[in-house]
Amino acid sequence: MTEPISKQLDYLFNPRSVAVLGASNNPGKWGFGTFDTVRRTAKDIDIYPINPTSTEIMGVLAYKSVLDVPGPVDLAVIVIPPQTVPGAMRECARKGVRAAVVISAGFRETGEQGAALEQEVLEIAREAGIRFVGPNCNGHFNTSVSLHTTGGGARPGPLGLVSQSGNFGGHILGRGAERGIGFTKYVSSGNEADLHLEDYIEYLAEDNETKIILAYIEGLKEGRRFFELARKTTKKKPIIVMKVGRTDEGARAAQSHTGSLSGSDAVHEAAFRQSGVIRVDEVDDMFDIALALLRQPLPRGRRVGIVTGGGGFGVVATDACRRMGLEIPVLTGETVLTLSKYLQPRWSHGNPVDMAGDTQGSYPSLGTLLKAENIDAVLAVGSVGYPAQTPTDPERYDAATRERMEEYRQQMIDGELGLVDGLIERIDRHQKPLIITASTGRGQSPAIIKLEKNGFYGYRTPEEGARVLSYLVRYAEYVRGIED
Amino acid sequence: MTEPISKQLDYLFNPRSVAVLGASNNPGKWGFGTFDTVRRTAKDIDIYPINPTSTEIMGVLAYKSVLDVPGPVDLAVIVIPPQTVPGAMRECARKGVRAAVVISAGFRETGEQGAALEQEVLEIAREAGIRFVGPNCNGHFNTSVSLHTTGGGARPGPLGLVSQSGNFGGHILGRGAERGIGFTKYVSSGNEADLHLEDYIEYLAEDNETKIILAYIEGLKEGRRFFELARKTTKKKPIIVMKVGRTDEGARAAQSHTGSLSGSDAVHEAAFRQSGVIRVDEVDDMFDIALALLRQPLPRGRRVGIVTGGGGFGVVATDACRRMGLEIPVLTGETVLTLSKYLQPRWSHGNPVDMAGDTQGSYPSLGTLLKAENIDAVLAVGSVGYPAQTPTDPERYDAATRERMEEYRQQMIDGELGLVDGLIERIDRHQKPLIITASTGRGQSPAIIKLEKNGFYGYRTPEEGARVLSYLVRYAEYVRGIED
Repeated sequence: MTEPISKQLDYLFNPRSVAVLGASNNPGKWGFGTFDTVRRTAKDIDIYPINPTSTEIMGVLAYKSVLDVPGPVDLAVIVIPPQTVPGAMRECARKGVRAAVVISAGFRETGEQGAALEQEVLEIAREAGIRFVGPNCNGHFNTSVSLHTTGGGARPGPLGLVSQSGNFGGHILGRGAERGIGFTKYVSSGNEADLHLEDYIEYLAEDNETKIILAYIEGLKEGRRFFELARKTTKKKPIIVMKVGRTDEGARAAQSHTGSLSGSDAVHEAAFRQSGVIRVDEVDDMFDIALALLRQPLPRGRRVGIVTGGGGFGVVATDACRRMGLEIPVLTGETVLTLSKYLQPRWSHGNPVDMAGDTQGSYPSLGTLLKAENIDAVLAVGSVGYPAQTPTDPERYDAATRERMEEYRQQMIDGELGLVDGLIERIDRHQKPLIITASTGRGQSPAIIKLEKNGFYGYRTPEEGARVLSYLVRYAEYVRGIED
Repeated sequence: MTEPISKQLDYLFNPRSVAVLGASNNPGKWGFGTFDTVRRTAKDIDIYPINPTSTEIMGVLAYKSVLDVPGPVDLAVIVIPPQTVPGAMRECARKGVRAAVVISAGFRETGEQGAALEQEVLEIAREAGIRFVGPNCNGHFNTSVSLHTTGGGARPGPLGLVSQSGNFGGHILGRGAERGIGFTKYVSSGNEADLHLEDYIEYLAEDNETKIILAYIEGLKEGRRFFELARKTTKKKPIIVMKVGRTDEGARAAQSHTGSLSGSDAVHEAAFRQSGVIRVDEVDDMFDIALALLRQPLPRGRRVGIVTGGGGFGVVATDACRRMGLEIPVLTGETVLTLSKYLQPRWSHGNPVDMAGDTQGSYPSLGTLLKAENIDAVLAVGSVGYPAQTPTDPERYDAATRERMEEYRQQMIDGELGLVDGLIERIDRHQKPLIITASTGRGQSPAIIKLEKNGFYGYRTPEEGARVLSYLVRYAEYVRGIED
């Protein structure tokens, strides 16, 4: 195996031809869904269903064995009973297959006999130079060539995902889809008999299409290699992980699941921090952070300026920021003077900048804080995003009222839309992140929609915004060489 | 003021007639939205716009003063410049108005002059026996009589909400709407010159329509009264609060917002615990917990049984439960034997019960754990809710395949639907909560839809499910007389 990992895994992610061993016409079989997904997604790739008894699968000509396929086969997807996998792998070897995805379960995770079977498959593949995913996994995909052995509904996007659990990997993909964010590549690594999580991380680190790497980890087979890779990668490409086994019971559950030894959590925690890996406890945090990292500048420090339309939001945001280790500095006299030019006299004259309902001053206030020398990041809470809803029951208004409402609405929207470009320009000029949280009417606010099109996500709650900022701050400190 | 609070506040929540002082035809004025909301929501209530210069507001006959209104006025809603509020309150007194909502800002929150103005308004109202909300608030509503001075889109439901911030109150209402849960009554308490948060809590505690009380608190004016009320209330009606000012900076921001003194957070934390008040840090937790409290039995202890479709979910759920102080006990031999009757031999033979993809065994496994003597609560993670999606591109399947898929889908759905009633019966028989988390296809799963119709909410993530259970456990311990 002298080829670099990037080349070896290309047969997995960019094959010219794929055979599905165990493709089935029976919707109750896993091989039905797998072949269906391959068939529906594959573009400009030759696909061959392999089934010992059917001559066609979903209208595609089927073969009894991979050896019967007329052309070459780069990738074999294996969805057959476990005891038949060694035989199938031997045929793949004879056929010259380069890579395989072994979805079939019933190996090491079931005990000694399964472990022996897994070892047999590994030896056959090693001898033939076939690299394989699994066994006991749920597949993989590459959205840029549109080849999926699972997750056929995933949309293309900037995230790469490796998961040591098939069902939790599917869960992460589902949450991403709900958040409207897409993926370049995904792999469910299963028992990792041959290819390890570390191999996929190395591949994704070198993959130009993948901007951020996500991973669900139960246990690292090559811990030293993982952290060396992370140290080389995280300063240019963030790695966000969810590592379970924080508690003894969780660690035991992980061991009985994929046989992984989770290791000491304190050791892992320290190693993640020292190698710039962002560790989260909950899946949605992965996306919250990724959405910020994709477009926002990194903060130069922990000092947050808050701009809010009303006091309650300011109090909640301040509390959340402080709980998460951020600072809310006193504003300089110069900043207070500048803000007083834009805001009504009733504004709070402090940080949080509570405009007390005077949302006209929102954008100049945000700009002023982005410029302020003792502010590293700005949190907008309920101060951006006029909800441009039209009445749901327009018949309840007379014509004159409707006209006045529409005029006012349009004026508010146009006024705000006209300020969005300037705000983005200031974020980029001052190189400070602006985290926007908008509680209601997010989908209805033209300004938020425009900001999101430009990569600035509108978070739902002040707490979410503070949490994202705290992760950005810690990551930025690592990138700048400050480890806490 | 010899009337009980429930009677006094009835003029606020159940008035026969409402005057809106400051009703306006100008959509840029607050009085436009307020009157519009009153006009659109009020049923069988006389409404009178009051405006010094217009003879009609949105087509409704307007009066120059509340004194010109022909009939009696129970409730006055005041949305006029602050310096004109004392005069308006005097007219309300002469008119015999019983209650008022003073939305106008520019009082104590702006400094000494504002405080004096607020005191003047208070004295006029006190002398006349008018109880009032605010000033500096954003209104209130009662969905059962459909009277709203704000939040006209709120749907009826079992929650009552008091908020010491108008914008944060609106945010809570918005998050509730997004979660599909409704409210009985809402009040934004503002500066609390006359009526205090404690008055509304007392009212909601006695209100039969309100099943759970939510509150956003910056500072308690009558702390002793609040905790006495809580002790009398929480064993039969849960109170869920978000109390800010956890950090010094948050407390200072609260003080500059509504002048509240937050007080020592440690003292509050202890007092909330000792009076059975459920305290959360984030808004969405309020709804997560409320949704469970409305229908689920309370757990008798901390011992959780987990049933999962696959290992990753089980590991994540175990870790989350342990982090949150729950226990994952070893299953008894009897439970293992019973489960082995229902599940394929590859199941995990332990807790979490990992069915390893054999979802056919889901419902019997859940039933077995609900019955198990050493289990107090059950967490289903990815084991309930077959996503009954039909293909989005049916034309890509031949007729025979489509028919097989449809048959399989229907069989899966019918099989699961047939088990839902039995599951609910077991929850009620064994009086143990079952928290269901289903990651994908929730909206498409007929079983989840049926469970939700019966009050069993489908949570989104295992972490959310564990968090809800941990709150239920602590609340149950209080109700049973165990304080930790």
